[in-house]
Amino acid sequence: MSRDYSLGEIAAHLHAELRGSPETRITGLNSLKNASEGQIAFLSNPKYASQLSDCNAEAVILTAAQADTFSGSCLILENPYLGYAQLSGWFDPAPQQACGIHGSAAVHASAMVRDDVYLGPNVVIEAGAVLASGCRVEANSFIGARSVLGENCHISPNVSIYHDVHMGDHVRIHSGSVIGADGFGFAPDGTGGYQKIHQIGGVEIGNNVEIGACTTIDRGALENTIIGNGVIIDNHVQIGHNAEVGDNTAMAAYAGLAGSAKIGANCTLAGSACLVGHITVCDNVVLTARTMATKNITEPGIYSSSVTSLLPSLEWRKNAARMPQLDSMARRLKALEKKQP
Amino acid sequence: MSRDYSLGEIAAHLHAELRGSPETRITGLNSLKNASEGQIAFLSNPKYASQLSDCNAEAVILTAAQADTFSGSCLILENPYLGYAQLSGWFDPAPQQACGIHGSAAVHASAMVRDDVYLGPNVVIEAGAVLASGCRVEANSFIGARSVLGENCHISPNVSIYHDVHMGDHVRIHSGSVIGADGFGFAPDGTGGYQKIHQIGGVEIGNNVEIGACTTIDRGALENTIIGNGVIIDNHVQIGHNAEVGDNTAMAAYAGLAGSAKIGANCTLAGSACLVGHITVCDNVVLTARTMATKNITEPGIYSSSVTSLLPSLEWRKNAARMPQLDSMARRLKALEKKQP
Amino acid sequence: MSRDYSLGEIAAHLHAELRGSPETRITGLNSLKNASEGQIAFLSNPKYASQLSDCNAEAVILTAAQADTFSGSCLILENPYLGYAQLSGWFDPAPQQACGIHGSAAVHASAMVRDDVYLGPNVVIEAGAVLASGCRVEANSFIGARSVLGENCHISPNVSIYHDVHMGDHVRIHSGSVIGADGFGFAPDGTGGYQKIHQIGGVEIGNNVEIGACTTIDRGALENTIIGNGVIIDNHVQIGHNAEVGDNTAMAAYAGLAGSAKIGANCTLAGSACLVGHITVCDNVVLTARTMATKNITEPGIYSSSVTSLLPSLEWRKNAARMPQLDSMARRLKALEKKQP
Repeated sequence: MSRDYSLGEIAAHLHAELRGSPETRITGLNSLKNASEGQIAFLSNPKYASQLSDCNAEAVILTAAQADTFSGSCLILENPYLGYAQLSGWFDPAPQQACGIHGSAAVHASAMVRDDVYLGPNVVIEAGAVLASGCRVEANSFIGARSVLGENCHISPNVSIYHDVHMGDHVRIHSGSVIGADGFGFAPDGTGGYQKIHQIGGVEIGNNVEIGACTTIDRGALENTIIGNGVIIDNHVQIGHNAEVGDNTAMAAYAGLAGSAKIGANCTLAGSACLVGHITVCDNVVLTARTMATKNITEPGIYSSSVTSLLPSLEWRKNAARMPQLDSMARRLKALEKKQP
Repeated sequence: MSRDYSLGEIAAHLHAELRGSPETRITGLNSLKNASEGQIAFLSNPKYASQLSDCNAEAVILTAAQADTFSGSCLILENPYLGYAQLSGWFDPAPQQACGIHGSAAVHASAMVRDDVYLGPNVVIEAGAVLASGCRVEANSFIGARSVLGENCHISPNVSIYHDVHMGDHVRIHSGSVIGADGFGFAPDGTGGYQKIHQIGGVEIGNNVEIGACTTIDRGALENTIIGNGVIIDNHVQIGHNAEVGDNTAMAAYAGLAGSAKIGANCTLAGSACLVGHITVCDNVVLTARTMATKNITEPGIYSSSVTSLLPSLEWRKNAARMPQLDSMARRLKALEKKQP
Repeated sequence: MSRDYSLGEIAAHLHAELRGSPETRITGLNSLKNASEGQIAFLSNPKYASQLSDCNAEAVILTAAQADTFSGSCLILENPYLGYAQLSGWFDPAPQQACGIHGSAAVHASAMVRDDVYLGPNVVIEAGAVLASGCRVEANSFIGARSVLGENCHISPNVSIYHDVHMGDHVRIHSGSVIGADGFGFAPDGTGGYQKIHQIGGVEIGNNVEIGACTTIDRGALENTIIGNGVIIDNHVQIGHNAEVGDNTAMAAYAGLAGSAKIGANCTLAGSACLVGHITVCDNVVLTARTMATKNITEPGIYSSSVTSLLPSLEWRKNAARMPQLDSMARRLKALEKKQP
């Protein structure tokens, strides 16, 4: 599939001011450093500004100020990085399957699948599932009973969606992810073992949600686990039963919400950041990498935990060995202070 | 599938004392707060006791003491939470597939599959595998050569079970999990590279084990990796080669056992807690979230590691910066103490 | 499949000096402690030397010095552990599928699949993919458009390989892993939401790479994510977009590279060790378990972070509570020192 656009088309798509010929052909998108003839590049991080003079790109997306120092073709935008993002889909080499249902797909007679849907080989759609217009479910993925995919959802290969998972429009789920598996709920049975608590809630996912690879979102124990609109989730993320994620919150790799934890809107969980069970974090909170929120957070802001500092191991060990003495050190320090005149 | 039971049936199932009419119809199970007409609820956490007066449930599972303050229909149990757990399966909306082998399942001629087994679409059963009575293997899952599933095992979609994995009865494995992949074993080859150590052991799993989604249990290097009876395992858990997990031990999300680590019976590993390789932890130990057990534990109890305290990042940074000074601080403190009269 | 070799054959394979009869039959490989008649064992860790006298193995792989104290049959090598590793494949019970394409595999007409390749049931090979000689792709795995597998690659069941992933020869990928999913790239859209950045780069993997189960390697944003030759990767590992891993580097379970992080050759990341985004770590660096590299490392060595020490929780709590006082303690200590004569 050849990708070949005119600079004029691109400028119109981005609502950018164009300096240069609108007839110029653009066949690729690349970084400032690696772009070559026929490719368009962008400058977003000022620390790469020096690369502009040596750049071989056919055209560059720039701010007005940057454009004044540049003699080549350019598109002028207030936010070149956003412009790059908006353009990136035009050069995405991911195959766009035609609609149609592969002969090996197993679709239950009671499932409702719109005519323009793509179902890849070995896809399984169970009883009562609903796939709205424009959905694409790739090879070997499973959609459980009564689950609902809104318009233009895109499910990569080998995804497992259990029963009673409801998602809005434009939900993207990458391979290996599992939506709606049982929450981790067990009651001690009084004899040292456990009685399973069947997880009879479901999962609700909003519109425009992206879910990475090998991520798990468990179904609720009684009510639903809830993911808001515009949420973006990376790989290896864990969202426990009855957790709630507010609109436009971002969760990086290994981030986790334990059962019934609630994080607000417009939050960011950096890698491995997590909330313990049953706590609530308000809107506009950032947890830095590996932070564990162990209590409610009610004020927007950036939070961290975990004393950590990268050191050569020998030096680190000397300091780490003092950890069990911290309390004693604090007390002894106080005692010394009291003795001072 | 309509769920509709009489309160009398439910009381009998739970061996509960019934206050109210045994004819009352119950069609759902819900929380005290959200239960409505026709639904049964329960009160386990005393902090929700105040919700009892406003509760719209048809009946509530209560302790005798709580029942004395309640005028509605109720079932009286010493442990209402356990009663709720025992009842939860009656209201589980998960589809119960009829037995039968889907036409697209690929079952090797030498596999032994009992007549009442369910195999979903695209299930693959390799040579010499054994599936006992009542097993259900859902779509797109794989059972390797000579692996054995005891009675009533339930394997969700897209699970991978390698060869020579032996499991007992009533084992439940959720989607995306991988049992019996190679342990991470390599010998430095003397030239800077690695020689793979083929993993020729298998995996043994006891009875009544639950394994969450995207969890991995590696096969042994020479002998087997072993999971006891009644073990419950959450999502994203890693169990390395030749690790052993004692009966009724619970492992929350991201918990891990490195190679040849052994954890006893009735232990709890909270989220991300782990054992480093080749150590042994005795029975009845709890590791709190993110604790790393770096040495043997021989006394039952609750253990933690990792200095951590949730703070606004600016404040956190000031304290974290002192980490490389801890040893110096301890020495200087001691020096000051010596100078005291 | 019977495994039955003569001791002479084994000695020749390992280039070992043989003490004993070359006709002796060896039918298994086991640990010194558990080996029985007909089995060969090895002694690598000196702390098990005392097991040598009670050993029931038919023969043992030993160093010359150890052999002098042993009266049984033995193979003498400088590095018995490496010898064991080199021999282990001869006793691997993993089934070796014959070549051939299962009738249910869906291979696109434009894919190039060599005659001696094995494709299991329900394998999907998309347009333009290339599978070189000796490749084995097991059940329910997916190979995306234009992806290339070099000679003798072995893909376990339920693996997802997206489009434009190029791997060298002898690459082994375990179940549940996902190669080439989108990197986690989004630009704030100025209204509180996110604009997806399509990930138009691919993934390049060298020769002799092993990748564990449920591991993810994301495709690049513009250029490729790169994995060198001889790299070994455990389960649940995350490699972000445009990360680079140098030759012969080892990454244990949950190790991670954030986007654009680069780790050199011959490095080791222990369990849960990670690099934050955009940093570079030089060759020959070891990060101990749970270490987070937050800045460039330019000197080979062993590095750690994270104050941590395993304690009973009550004692731990007292010390952890001092964490928010560390900076204050450091200042007060200095003040006391100033007051000293």
